[in-house]
This record gives sequence, structure tokens and C-alpha cells, in this order.
Amino acid sequence: MNKPCDLIIEVRWLVPVEPKNVVLEHHSVVVQAGRIIDLLPTALARQQYQPLQRTVLDDSVLIPGLINLHTHAAMTLMRGLADDLPLMPWLQQHIWPAEQRWVSHEFVRDGTLLACAEMLRAGVTCFNDMYFHPAAAEQAVAQAGMRANLGLVVMDFPTSYAVDAEDYLHQGLAARDGWRGNPLVTASLAPHAPYTLSDASFEHVVMYAEQLGLGIHTHLHETQDEITQSLQLHGRRPMQRMVDLGVLSPGLIAAHCVHMTQDDMDLLRAHGGHIAHCPASNLKLASGMSPVAAMQAAGLNIGIGTDGAASNNRLDMLAEMRLAALLAKGVAGDATAVPACQALSMATINAARALGLDDRIGSIEVGKFADLTALRMGDIETLPCYDVLSHVVYVLGREHVSHVWVSGDLRYQKLPQQDGLYANIEAMELREISSKWYKKLKQSQN
Amino acid sequence: MNKPCDLIIEVRWLVPVEPKNVVLEHHSVVVQAGRIIDLLPTALARQQYQPLQRTVLDDSVLIPGLINLHTHAAMTLMRGLADDLPLMPWLQQHIWPAEQRWVSHEFVRDGTLLACAEMLRAGVTCFNDMYFHPAAAEQAVAQAGMRANLGLVVMDFPTSYAVDAEDYLHQGLAARDGWRGNPLVTASLAPHAPYTLSDASFEHVVMYAEQLGLGIHTHLHETQDEITQSLQLHGRRPMQRMVDLGVLSPGLIAAHCVHMTQDDMDLLRAHGGHIAHCPASNLKLASGMSPVAAMQAAGLNIGIGTDGAASNNRLDMLAEMRLAALLAKGVAGDATAVPACQALSMATINAARALGLDDRIGSIEVGKFADLTALRMGDIETLPCYDVLSHVVYVLGREHVSHVWVSGDLRYQKLPQQDGLYANIEAMELREISSKWYKKLKQSQN
Repeated sequence: MNKPCDLIIEVRWLVPVEPKNVVLEHHSVVVQAGRIIDLLPTALARQQYQPLQRTVLDDSVLIPGLINLHTHAAMTLMRGLADDLPLMPWLQQHIWPAEQRWVSHEFVRDGTLLACAEMLRAGVTCFNDMYFHPAAAEQAVAQAGMRANLGLVVMDFPTSYAVDAEDYLHQGLAARDGWRGNPLVTASLAPHAPYTLSDASFEHVVMYAEQLGLGIHTHLHETQDEITQSLQLHGRRPMQRMVDLGVLSPGLIAAHCVHMTQDDMDLLRAHGGHIAHCPASNLKLASGMSPVAAMQAAGLNIGIGTDGAASNNRLDMLAEMRLAALLAKGVAGDATAVPACQALSMATINAARALGLDDRIGSIEVGKFADLTALRMGDIETLPCYDVLSHVVYVLGREHVSHVWVSGDLRYQKLPQQDGLYANIEAMELREISSKWYKKLKQSQN
Repeated sequence: MNKPCDLIIEVRWLVPVEPKNVVLEHHSVVVQAGRIIDLLPTALARQQYQPLQRTVLDDSVLIPGLINLHTHAAMTLMRGLADDLPLMPWLQQHIWPAEQRWVSHEFVRDGTLLACAEMLRAGVTCFNDMYFHPAAAEQAVAQAGMRANLGLVVMDFPTSYAVDAEDYLHQGLAARDGWRGNPLVTASLAPHAPYTLSDASFEHVVMYAEQLGLGIHTHLHETQDEITQSLQLHGRRPMQRMVDLGVLSPGLIAAHCVHMTQDDMDLLRAHGGHIAHCPASNLKLASGMSPVAAMQAAGLNIGIGTDGAASNNRLDMLAEMRLAALLAKGVAGDATAVPACQALSMATINAARALGLDDRIGSIEVGKFADLTALRMGDIETLPCYDVLSHVVYVLGREHVSHVWVSGDLRYQKLPQQDGLYANIEAMELREISSKWYKKLKQSQN
């Protein structure tokens, strides 16, 4: 009895995600060396464990840390820079010129730190990124103490970061060598999209991925134009082209998947690839509406991503999860599509599975890392509560996030009547970052 | 010089909504006897006016108070009672039985007070309601100090509130007689929907509306089933039936309008009716997706409503406005559809126009009442800000609301590091209300 442990978190409600559709009441999570070593009624936990630290959350619900399965974190610095435009004019006339002019190691470190702060504050403990200068992103991730899978971006056209596909690969792999000591950070190869890489470049990426055992993260079937262009240039839809090039595998995360025929779904399913569904970005850029219920029925594993802050304009996984649940019903014409429980799985365990991290994160289960988010349930707009799972998806927002742990370390905390506090980020640093880049980007915009 | 006035609000940014697409910086709103008597640069305001009270908001944006154009406020007490179900099973198996069992004067007063508190906290200053026991709703509205248009609900089938259409009308009109002294409350007749009133009942409603000069608020073209049933029973789509019955007029607010042919739009336009677009509820109940851009192109006036908290599950107009802006682009396949400026108009001046109150509210203009909402712009997730209007629609949430005035009276205030405070509602009262009804409804649910 009274076994020692590092941390006990006692909560009013706990949604483990696995097993599904379960809400535990008055339970405790017992954490030792960053991992969950027990999960039991609080009355029992008090008898059996002697923690170094005990956090009591009488009016909160504890969920697994949310996982943002597709983002370009550093683009927080371009939040709202250009709105209400379609994907290609938005990219070609606004985002790409701004990136060409401003993106640097410093830009990416600063922008990613701002993104980490925004995400932690919103209950996100892990994100799947794709951007230039991943070494800079890793510095920010390490400071924030978050978990991340950083995509080593590859494309054919030159940027200030690299000159050609080979150079992108080498830059990315060198960056990865630099963060081997960070247990919270993994990497994948991130060929940008079917329309920015040649067949030869994709083959190169696939070769490296296989040799190094890395996953692949790419944009796929985001717009109808992408598919039309592929039919013209390659005589195939991008999905078939990716099959032919060997891109599809259980290590693939395909972001967007908006325009999907049954054949597209069957191909992706047959090869084991995963989907990062980005409903807000797809609506905002008018890319379309992903057939989520049909893709689920086809047996595909679907997580949720915010995309970058320039096309959302939030890195707010609670809002994204709610939108995913609502939109799936509208698209399917079926109010039972993506019920609350499933939406929460998409934002947690499904994303962990896509990242190959479902043995470590994505649910509150013994043996997994203690990546956890606590949400306050007492605010006016949450009253009354008949169904905790429904509230997590349909009612709660990022403003209710009170505690965020990564590997058992408290990384963000917002106590009542106090400002939120990060373990290792100062609000002043974020304001200085924002102000510095605002001045530069605003100037070049005019 | 130094003219006396009641209140000056000095803000960093001010979005008047009319004229459109304008952001004023370092401006002041001058309020006297509840109305805006001047709007000018703060430097000038300081020279010209001597206020009894001055509120300085250095890092905030001031917008017109948001108007929730379609809700059933008291249904906050059924928030999340039954989710992930289509409209008819949701109504017939869950909502209507719960209403039959529990709805009373006390239920409506309590539920509406909770709704008012939730809405004030979210920057909403006015709402267009439809529910039983409007006299009870008015008591809550008066306590909260909000503006409301209360729909005097009419349907053919009996409830605990009234036995037939005639009785509903008499109950409603008697209630209205009781609140004549409240300058913030107006009324309309609220025939529930085409499928719950006979032709004779609609004709009765229209007769009263014309005699009393009241507007009409109804559900219209919410689901495909409604239209199919109308074709079977009446040989016409509901819109044509409403034309034939005289329901369509410039005083009509038609909630939902999800399934709209060009003919439907033309009819509504020709008769001058207004639309309360409810995107979240329409998605959640899988009713469909309203063709907002097409309806705008047809010259229709469109506001935004949350619907009741039982099918949303929020009364969160900022979230609803963002969803309206995003979804319109997806439905139209056009990223330029409903840009930020237009979304904000829908949530303010368009709704005021629909209510016939656009000479009084809906924009920050001299002569209008000072119904105003201030939003904090400094939080991490708002950094950086290139475009204030974009931020209001795409980035800010109800958690950023700091001050809400109705007719120049401060009705809600949330200062940094403090809990939100209402002028005349105690959080404890809301918790007691929630707890009381939770126990009753939970019991009958099991």
C-alpha cells in the first residue's frame, strides 16, 4: 500500500477514449516517469498511492491530449494575412511571395513557438507539422515541451530553404540528425503535394522513407484542380499516381482527401494510408467538403488537423473537432454520422494511429505516456450537462482548457482568475515575436 | 466644448458595420441617454466631451452587439439532452416528450435566464426567440437587461401551455400586454412551422399580425421532409403555401431556409421576407446546408441564429458567424463567398433589419442605441493581427468578450484575471437553476 508515484491527477470525469464511449467518474490517473501506471477510482487511488504531487480537479473532465494531425505551425505569423480567397490565388499571390521574402530559420522558430503556445493553450499536446527549416521548428517544440512529428518538406521548386528536391531531403535529414536526443520529436518525409513534385522526386522520397523507416506526410486530393491537372499531366488521379510511385503505405498521412471517389478510398484503404481531415481550411479555401462518413464506412482511419493558421485562422482542435462532427452529418445527410465519441477519437487515438504512436499516446490507458488535457466544466455556457462526451465535442472550447501535461510534465496551466502560464514560454516573448514579424510582413504586404 | 455626456467608450479599434468594411482606430463612442450621440477620434472626444463615466479599452475591438436571429432560449435546460439524431426522432422521441413533461412558466423563466447569461457572455445583446410562456421569458430578459423580440408561439396541437391555435394566440397576446412597459422587448407572432399549423391557423395568425402590426417568425424549409410532406398534403411547397396564406411579408422572419429553389428565393424576395440562417443546427440535425451565397445573390436579407441550445449546443453567435462564413464558401464552391465583413453584417445589421429595428440597433452609428460588444485582442491566439475584421470573424471567440452594453447600460463585464460579472444576474442563481432542472430532466430521461 501507499506505493510512491510522481503525480496523481484526480478528476470529476475522465474520458479515456479507449475503450470507446466511456466516461469514468471520480477517477485518478497515476503517473510515474512520464507514463500512466494506473487508472482507478479516486477512493482507491488515495488508499494505494503516495504521490509526490497531487492535482485535484473537482469540476473538470480529463481527456487525452489532442493531436493536430496536419499543420504548418510557423504560419501563425501569417494569420489573417489574406482571407476569403481560393487556394491557388491565396498561395500564389499572397502566401508563397510572403514565404519567399521572409521565411528563415528565425521565422520558423518564432512562428512555431507562437503556434506551440496557441496549441498548448487549446489542449493540444502533439502535432504533425510540415514546413521549411524543421530544425528551427524543433527548437520551438523543445522549448514548449510538446510532442511533434516534424515533416521534412520536399518540393521541386527552390525557396530560401533549399534549391531542389535532393537539397530539401538533405536539409531535412540533417535537421533530423540534430534532434535525435529529443524523445518527444519524430520525423516524417513531407513531399508537399502531387503538383509540386515530379515522379522522380516522389520516388526519391519513397526510397529514403523505406531506407530510414520514416512515414510520409503529404497533401492529397485537396482540390478538384489538383485532380484535373493530374489527369491532364499524368493521365491518372493523384491517388493512383501515388500508388504507382509507391507513396501509399501504412506510413502515409494524406492531408485533406476532399475529393474522393470510391476507387480513391479503396486504394488508400488497400495500402493502409491515413487521412488528416481539415474541415475549416477546406471550407475557407472552398476546396470542398470531405466525405468523412463514407471514408469511415470504407474502413479508413481519419484524424483531424487545423492546417496552418493562415487558412483557418486558428490552431484550435476543439473547434475543429466540433466542425468535423457537424459537417460530417451535413455532408452525409445523416445526423448519426460522426457522433461525439467518434469525433473525439478522430482528434486523439485515430491521429496517434496515423502517426504510428498509438502504443504511446492517443488515449488514457495504463502504459501510455501521460499526455493529458483537463477542461473546466463549471462555466455558465456548460450548464447543465447531461452527457460529458457531448459537452467535450459540442460545448467546450479552448477557453475551458485548464491543465495540459505532456509525458506527465505540466506544460500549461490556467487557474481561475489568473492568466495562463506555460512551463517554459513567456507571454512577453510571444508578443515580441508577433510584433517583430507583423512589422515586416505588414510592410511587404502594402 | 466639454459637453456633458453619460459615457465615453474609448477603443483601439471600432468596426461600425455601417458603413461597410470600415475599421476605425483610436475612436470613441459617446453615449447619452442610452443612445450614441457621437463617434469620433478619441483625441477629439477628449477635447469635446466631459463624460460621467469613461471606459478605456486600449487593446480591444468594439462591434455592434450581436443579434441572435433565431433561438428557443429556454432550451438551454435541454443542452446535450439528446445528440446525433435527425430532426424528427430528436423532436418526437426526446424534445417534445421532455417539453410535455417539464415546460412551465418556471422552466421558461429559468431556462431563458440561463440563455441570457450565456448570450451576454458571448457578446449577444438582442435575440429573436420562439418558445412557450413568453411572459416568463420576458421576466428573464428584463432581469438580464437584454433586448429581445419574443415570438408568441402558435401551433395546432395542445401542450401544457395552450390547447389550440386560438388559445396559443390569446396566451401570447395576453403575455405581450404584460410587458408593454419594457422598451427593450418587442413581440412577433410565431406560428411554429408549416407542419404544425393548419391553413386556418395560419390565416388566423396573419389576421392578428396585420391588425396588430406584428411581424411573423416561423420555421420554413428546414428539412426535405417538410417539403415532401407539404407537396403530399397541400400540393405545394411550403413557401408557395405561405404565399397563398399571406404569411410572406416584409415582417416575416423565416428560420432555416435550407432547401431553397430559385422559385422559393424569388417568392421570398418578392414579398420581402427575411432569413434566419442557422448553420450549426442545420448540420447537427442533418437538415442540410443552406445556399447562402445564392440567397444573397437573389437579394435576400440574411441574419444568423443559433437555434436552441438543444440542437447546437451553444448560443454562441461568434462561433455561428464563423461557421456561416466558412460553410457558405464550401456550399458555393467560392472562397470569396461571405467574406468576413459580410458575415459580421449578417450577425448585426441584417438581423436588425429583419426585426424592423435597423433604425435603432445593428451598427455603431449616431442616433442608434448603444448596444455594444467589446472583444479583447491581446491573447496569444490572436497574434499577430493584420486585419481586424478578419479576426472578429475567424479568430475571436466568446472567451474574448470583455464588455457588453445594452442601451448604454453595462450588462456584462469580464476584466482580466476576474470572473465575468453581470449587472443583475448572480452565477449562483444560474447554478441553482441548472442543478434543479438537471435533476428533473435526467430522472425522466432514464
